[in-house]
Amino acid sequence: MAQEIERKFLVDAQAWNSTEKPAGAVFRQGYLVTDPQKTIRVRLTPGKAFLTIKGLTTGVTRPEFEYEIPVTEATELLNRFAVTELSKTRYTLPFAGKIWEVDVFSGTNTGLIVAEIELDSEDEVFALPGWVTLEVTGDARYYNANLALHPYTLWSQDLSS
Amino acid sequence: MAQEIERKFLVDAQAWNSTEKPAGAVFRQGYLVTDPQKTIRVRLTPGKAFLTIKGLTTGVTRPEFEYEIPVTEATELLNRFAVTELSKTRYTLPFAGKIWEVDVFSGTNTGLIVAEIELDSEDEVFALPGWVTLEVTGDARYYNANLALHPYTLWSQDLSS
Repeated sequence: MAQEIERKFLVDAQAWNSTEKPAGAVFRQGYLVTDPQKTIRVRLTPGKAFLTIKGLTTGVTRPEFEYEIPVTEATELLNRFAVTELSKTRYTLPFAGKIWEVDVFSGTNTGLIVAEIELDSEDEVFALPGWVTLEVTGDARYYNANLALHPYTLWSQDLSS
Repeated sequence: MAQEIERKFLVDAQAWNSTEKPAGAVFRQGYLVTDPQKTIRVRLTPGKAFLTIKGLTTGVTRPEFEYEIPVTEATELLNRFAVTELSKTRYTLPFAGKIWEVDVFSGTNTGLIVAEIELDSEDEVFALPGWVTLEVTGDARYYNANLALHPYTLWSQDLSS
């Protein structure tokens, strides 16, 4: 089992768009289970696919079990078993000695850009890129499983209802 | 994806006990999900472990996606995420040109012995060993996920309640 130690931030679209970056990779991901206690995800990326089981987040740490699976089977699993799905383009880029993953969401989550940094320990010190804004680590609304169920473009409707 | 085509039979304990057989393998298996539409199972066997996703059974055919995973991770997945578990000893033995898998259940399913044969097509003809009794293919009570939830030794109590 891996222990993910991650912090998550919102990204300013204008600053991000004017940043030089590598090519992104389109991710299609669906959830077979979206319990808070247990998330089971199938992720399809260009040329690779993964089945991932994640447990409950404690602070910024989350247990994660990830297995690579054949791309064709990932498509079948998504089509047969996913209760909800989302898509996004992921950019992976270095900043100040660390790797940032920036997810530009599409579909019903268009408009949302989120950056994540994986840390070696919970108290590790790191530098923030200029395009990063508010920290949202631990904010359940930004969990990908929740974004698949309650997409970003519908949040204002959720609030007014 | 594999398509499982299987038929399942009850086994007479006395006839089975007096049959010559190879050594059995103890299986510990737990279910992360037990929906009828979708079963997600972790199976721990001597030296190997598997994560398996099965869909809905149609006739004697069931879609199955199986991935080998590290034994240590299987134990962790069972301990963290299994909603229900069972254990059994599996015997694998040839009969009349086909392979039979005989599961002698233990724990709360003690007393139940079930034999399965995997077929190449739904209408394949095969011979029945002498220790086989009633066919239970498609009887949901004998699905392993259901035996984990509603163990065999409690069936009479379930009926009388």
